Amino acid sequence: MKRIAFLLISVTVISGIVAFTAPASGHADEAAVPIFGITIPPGYRDWRLVSVAHEEGTLHDIRAILGNDVAIQAYRENKVPFPDGTIIARIAWTHVPSEENSKVFGQAQSFVAGTPTNIQFMVKDSKKFAATGGWGFAQFDKTGRPAAEAPLQTCFPCHRKLQGHDLVFTRYAP
Amino acid sequence: MKRIAFLLISVTVISGIVAFTAPASGHADEAAVPIFGITIPPGYRDWRLVSVAHEEGTLHDIRAILGNDVAIQAYRENKVPFPDGTIIARIAWTHVPSEENSKVFGQAQSFVAGTPTNIQFMVKDSKKFAATGGWGFAQFDKTGRPAAEAPLQTCFPCHRKLQGHDLVFTRYAP
Repeated sequence: MKRIAFLLISVTVISGIVAFTAPASGHADEAAVPIFGITIPPGYRDWRLVSVAHEEGTLHDIRAILGNDVAIQAYRENKVPFPDGTIIARIAWTHVPSEENSKVFGQAQSFVAGTPTNIQFMVKDSKKFAATGGWGFAQFDKTGRPAAEAPLQTCFPCHRKLQGHDLVFTRYAP
Repeated sequence: MKRIAFLLISVTVISGIVAFTAPASGHADEAAVPIFGITIPPGYRDWRLVSVAHEEGTLHDIRAILGNDVAIQAYRENKVPFPDGTIIARIAWTHVPSEENSKVFGQAQSFVAGTPTNIQFMVKDSKKFAATGGWGFAQFDKTGRPAAEAPLQTCFPCHRKLQGHDLVFTRYAP
């Protein structure tokens, strides 16, 4: 498994996709270093709500999208592209039926947040992250451990398709 | 229709359930006055997130539950019953598939917040709302118009079943 991880990292490093943040030595342990250099922003759980969503398929989660002050102001003023300093946080939990609610309602109709899955951030810095549309991407598991490079490589290719909304999926829910 | 509304109000007033906020004259128009006397708390949309949920059935919505500072502190400290001053807000939107996301992902898997449905509040005041477990209930449509008395009569009979969590459905999502 470690060998596979090492191989994956080697391939991505060689391919040059992550050249700007490639680990110097290529040790597998360094996969834990976030490739965009983003750490968990303090106090993000207190940020204001942008919107909510539910993903089916393999994700099968329910999620909240929060924004720092810069993000919320930009959203409310329909300011696109988002200004530098914008941080958008996506928190997610498993999408589970609530047994307690079902008992009260007399039928299964409520789905609630189960255990946390992971946390993702988009950080806008048009200079630092110029190679990826001005956005840095980060993901952390529920213990705060950053995602390896391979999953983070998949962010930009998908987000870049959203040119009409500055690479951001989520719209503001009034 | 107006006659039915008048009859409903008369019945509830006579029954004494809403005696503490009964309209003086019984005109149907007064059904618009919230029976618990709760108005929309200023700035509630900026409150911090408690959790998210998805309701199927006739509701078919996706929702966010926010709390004022008293609520958030109580939730984080597992303080049950909630202290007076707690206000819990429930915002909801239609649960709709995102065509934009489906195009990007190549499959329909994303459900997002559509148009707002209504807003609900639970306000804790153990003296004022002693007759309903210390909680006042309110609902407003997306234009800010308060719900009539009849729907608000349905809140307490359901919430009272949640004795183990001070009549509150939502748990804090970390």
